[in-house]
Amino acid sequence: MKTIAEAAPLVETKFITLFDDAHPLQLECGEKLSPVTVAYETYGTLNKEGTNAILICHALTANAHAAGINSPDDETPGWWDGLIGEQRAFDTDKYFVICPNILGSCYGTTGPSSINPRTGEPYRLTFPQFTIRDIVAVQKKLLDKLGVKRLATVCGSSLGGMQALEWPIMYPDFCETIIPISTAAKQSAWCIGLNAAARAAIMSDPVWNDGNYAEQPMNGLAVARMVGMLSYRSAEELEQRFGRRRQDPNRDAYAPENPFQVESYLHYQGRKLGKRFDANTYIYLSRATDSHDVTRDRAPLPEVLGSIKARMLCIGVSSDIRYPAKEQKEIVHFCPKARYAEINSIHGHDAFLIEFEQFNAIIKEFMARKSRS
Amino acid sequence: MKTIAEAAPLVETKFITLFDDAHPLQLECGEKLSPVTVAYETYGTLNKEGTNAILICHALTANAHAAGINSPDDETPGWWDGLIGEQRAFDTDKYFVICPNILGSCYGTTGPSSINPRTGEPYRLTFPQFTIRDIVAVQKKLLDKLGVKRLATVCGSSLGGMQALEWPIMYPDFCETIIPISTAAKQSAWCIGLNAAARAAIMSDPVWNDGNYAEQPMNGLAVARMVGMLSYRSAEELEQRFGRRRQDPNRDAYAPENPFQVESYLHYQGRKLGKRFDANTYIYLSRATDSHDVTRDRAPLPEVLGSIKARMLCIGVSSDIRYPAKEQKEIVHFCPKARYAEINSIHGHDAFLIEFEQFNAIIKEFMARKSRS
Repeated sequence: MKTIAEAAPLVETKFITLFDDAHPLQLECGEKLSPVTVAYETYGTLNKEGTNAILICHALTANAHAAGINSPDDETPGWWDGLIGEQRAFDTDKYFVICPNILGSCYGTTGPSSINPRTGEPYRLTFPQFTIRDIVAVQKKLLDKLGVKRLATVCGSSLGGMQALEWPIMYPDFCETIIPISTAAKQSAWCIGLNAAARAAIMSDPVWNDGNYAEQPMNGLAVARMVGMLSYRSAEELEQRFGRRRQDPNRDAYAPENPFQVESYLHYQGRKLGKRFDANTYIYLSRATDSHDVTRDRAPLPEVLGSIKARMLCIGVSSDIRYPAKEQKEIVHFCPKARYAEINSIHGHDAFLIEFEQFNAIIKEFMARKSRS
Repeated sequence: MKTIAEAAPLVETKFITLFDDAHPLQLECGEKLSPVTVAYETYGTLNKEGTNAILICHALTANAHAAGINSPDDETPGWWDGLIGEQRAFDTDKYFVICPNILGSCYGTTGPSSINPRTGEPYRLTFPQFTIRDIVAVQKKLLDKLGVKRLATVCGSSLGGMQALEWPIMYPDFCETIIPISTAAKQSAWCIGLNAAARAAIMSDPVWNDGNYAEQPMNGLAVARMVGMLSYRSAEELEQRFGRRRQDPNRDAYAPENPFQVESYLHYQGRKLGKRFDANTYIYLSRATDSHDVTRDRAPLPEVLGSIKARMLCIGVSSDIRYPAKEQKEIVHFCPKARYAEINSIHGHDAFLIEFEQFNAIIKEFMARKSRS
């Protein structure tokens, strides 16, 4: 029997409109954008001083629903419910936790699938190409509106980790600490390549129609996701989980209609994303990820990372092939106030959605030291 | 000025028809196939005893043209010209080197793109799904016809290495030695997944039309190749070679029409394969690769590998992510007569097409010991 204490709290996704034509969002590419609606959720209570806030930054295909449940009829908890809540890593008894859907996404925040108020049509490919820094600038505006004066920490994995890393560089006095996970100082050529293959798959789907689709290009999105999954999971995990087992091990091993279980799994994950995500959004967000480079228009890497004043806990995963541990170690190498911690896991890049016990332990310890200091 | 000695020798691709309706090729899946035409090249001279032959097995998208040039007008040497020739690893002064195009390929040997003599139409998806063992069985028939009594060695990388590994298991007294490179005892779940994504890309291309295309599904083939390339090359190599450089570094860094160099490279490689390869063939050959498992219908791995009588040089590449070195070490672990050698290279799985100096040195030494023994 579930007690009140155990039940995930009911939370509402809120919406706020930021920027207007008089004060538009100035993007890095030179274009301006207004208005910008942001979907976000909050957990816990902001203190009077506005200094107990934690910002959670999500990855490529996630949303603002990081914790709790959105409806009594849907018991699916938020994507980081394991880390956000009473007594968890991001303790809602002490902290005011905010998770905004990022700029350019398709879960309530303005992006390529949103209606352009000037035309009454979706932006589609007329949406300006934004960057990680633009995503962070929108988050800052949201925090200002919510009365947040200082962030106790900023945490995210993957694309979320890129945001966490940009925060103390863009707003040096605003972040007490940051916790970038499974991310890099710059997007690597291999990751750009993976994203290029995913984009090519979407753009090759004739349903995509140069971005002007009536329905989602499901096949293209599915192949994009399959390519992604093969870098989100480790070879070891796929081997242990599926090995060479066929869908029906008792049937003819050579029949294409009896695929390997790993094939079925990837096709299933592909279709699942196709049903819940927007193709143009995938293209824009993956390009924003590719744009990530903390040195761009700044200074060499040692100087940029060395200038970070926020204390940092940088977390890597032993089996991550997309953002291998050496990339997080490189960040720590150049940051005098950074500490590296490694999650021991076969789940690869996706470990941040699975290894809650290890993440809770490591982050709790860091947050406790932070409180004492 | 090129001297006669330096010029690559002119070689002719030959064709032979094997199997007939009275004696068809009996495939592992239970189906029969006849006739089977095989395209092949030979270099050097077979001795009277028929015992100085070397079989070269090619990988997924290669062909019978392994060495020399096919025409005075086309100076492109064969794909392994660096290793085959006078004084090279596979020394044509001493050995009779044979490279057949494998069963199911699209470069002269019977495959899905060949005309089915019973219908006058290409086989397309009516072609039976063959396996590595079927490929080897066709090679054996060819060698019998050519008068080869014993193989001094069988060598191949990747899918070619799978053939090399099956040879001494299927024909224990026929191979004196084998040299499998960058391969595995069983195709891993991760590799099956990569192939599944590649097949999904081809099959998602509407031009593919359930295999009944009038022209090649170029977009699908291109995405398949992009996915492949990201596992054939190492992240380190892509980083060194392309890094984060844009096609035009002086133009707006955010414009999608100014892609990263690594994106352009992958798109180029994709188009290049689309122009030279057949889509159904890609599907069949990748499925044959996925079928690879030396234990299938035999015995546990230690027993199957332990039974190999041929001496073995098993070669891995330090940066191969598709068939990591540990998979070759596993083969050697269970083979009493096997030795492991590693190529130190950043070129990953494709190193066998690049690191000729290292391969020549390692293989020459092994072949010299072989001669002395």
